[in-house]
Amino acid sequence: MADERRSFHRICVYGGSSSQVDGAYLKCAADLGAALARHGIGVVFGGGKAGMMGAMADAALAKGGEVIGVIPRSLVEKEVAHTGCTSLRVVESMHERKALMAELADAFIALPGGWGTLEEFAEVATWTQLNIHLKPVGLLNKWGFWDDLLRWVEHARQAGFLSTTSQRMVCVSDSPETLIRALEEAELPDAMEKL
Amino acid sequence: MADERRSFHRICVYGGSSSQVDGAYLKCAADLGAALARHGIGVVFGGGKAGMMGAMADAALAKGGEVIGVIPRSLVEKEVAHTGCTSLRVVESMHERKALMAELADAFIALPGGWGTLEEFAEVATWTQLNIHLKPVGLLNKWGFWDDLLRWVEHARQAGFLSTTSQRMVCVSDSPETLIRALEEAELPDAMEKL
Ligand SMILES: [Mg+2]
Repeated sequence: MADERRSFHRICVYGGSSSQVDGAYLKCAADLGAALARHGIGVVFGGGKAGMMGAMADAALAKGGEVIGVIPRSLVEKEVAHTGCTSLRVVESMHERKALMAELADAFIALPGGWGTLEEFAEVATWTQLNIHLKPVGLLNKWGFWDDLLRWVEHARQAGFLSTTSQRMVCVSDSPETLIRALEEAELPDAMEKL
Repeated sequence: MADERRSFHRICVYGGSSSQVDGAYLKCAADLGAALARHGIGVVFGGGKAGMMGAMADAALAKGGEVIGVIPRSLVEKEVAHTGCTSLRVVESMHERKALMAELADAFIALPGGWGTLEEFAEVATWTQLNIHLKPVGLLNKWGFWDDLLRWVEHARQAGFLSTTSQRMVCVSDSPETLIRALEEAELPDAMEKL
């Protein structure tokens, strides 16, 4: 990929649903939403209105971006859905939600979050590693939120549990602009094996 | 759970598939398999014969334990399946494999591993956190393999992205015996909310 950059139709964003976090995290999420819209990249997300994910969607919509929420019917019934999305796709299960989110997007970004966010990110990273899809993955590393996870990755690599390629394929930045650029240029396992 | 201990019918074990790891990791996996068999606890795993997972299954079988492998047909065709299992369940997809592994087990243990192991562990931890199932989860922390991930969990909790309950529900030990005991006594989110 050294001489050609990907261009993305849509990026899927994962992140924590808690509202009990520092306002700087909410601003970080909003900055990402705005940056994606500015680049003409649509947003795919879990379709909630609360916390960081709501802030991200609001900011993308305010800049005229496309925002697709993918949400299980049970959560729509609890009235937690973001009703202002360009499109709200209602699905029947959490499994269907994850599969559709992954299908609609060309790349993935994880904002700070908890177990659920870690799982969503590790899942798409695993798929990229196994070439189940060829889509780059990135961590928005606000305030070094993901530093300890990245230390774990380094430790796992040193111990022989993952390859240098599987470590390096993960893009990391605390800036939405820099992260989007890194995803455009990311070397994926498949591409590197062909070198 | 303070005054009563769970007893497990089967525990699902995740771990790295690489064979390029220090022999002490293989021994750690074998020790876990032997300990589970000694406790009369069946093992559910991904059904491969290589690396740590093969060593774990061999040790459990050698002690007379029940070992159930759950493996996609495509991997059977590549001849990577452990053919000595008590039972080998052949499924059609990776999704079906994970769902059946989770269904067959009462608890989960992650040995050291890479992105795939992290994803499997984070998924069942998320389900426990959300009460989608009420099954304890544990990390076999050989040589502090998971320490950096645990630092990430602590950081995420301090930042408000996960609760103290969701942090404390994860059992951690470098000893199979101690880890099994911790899983038997683990306080899960549901139980704690009822206190
Ligand atoms: Mg998953």
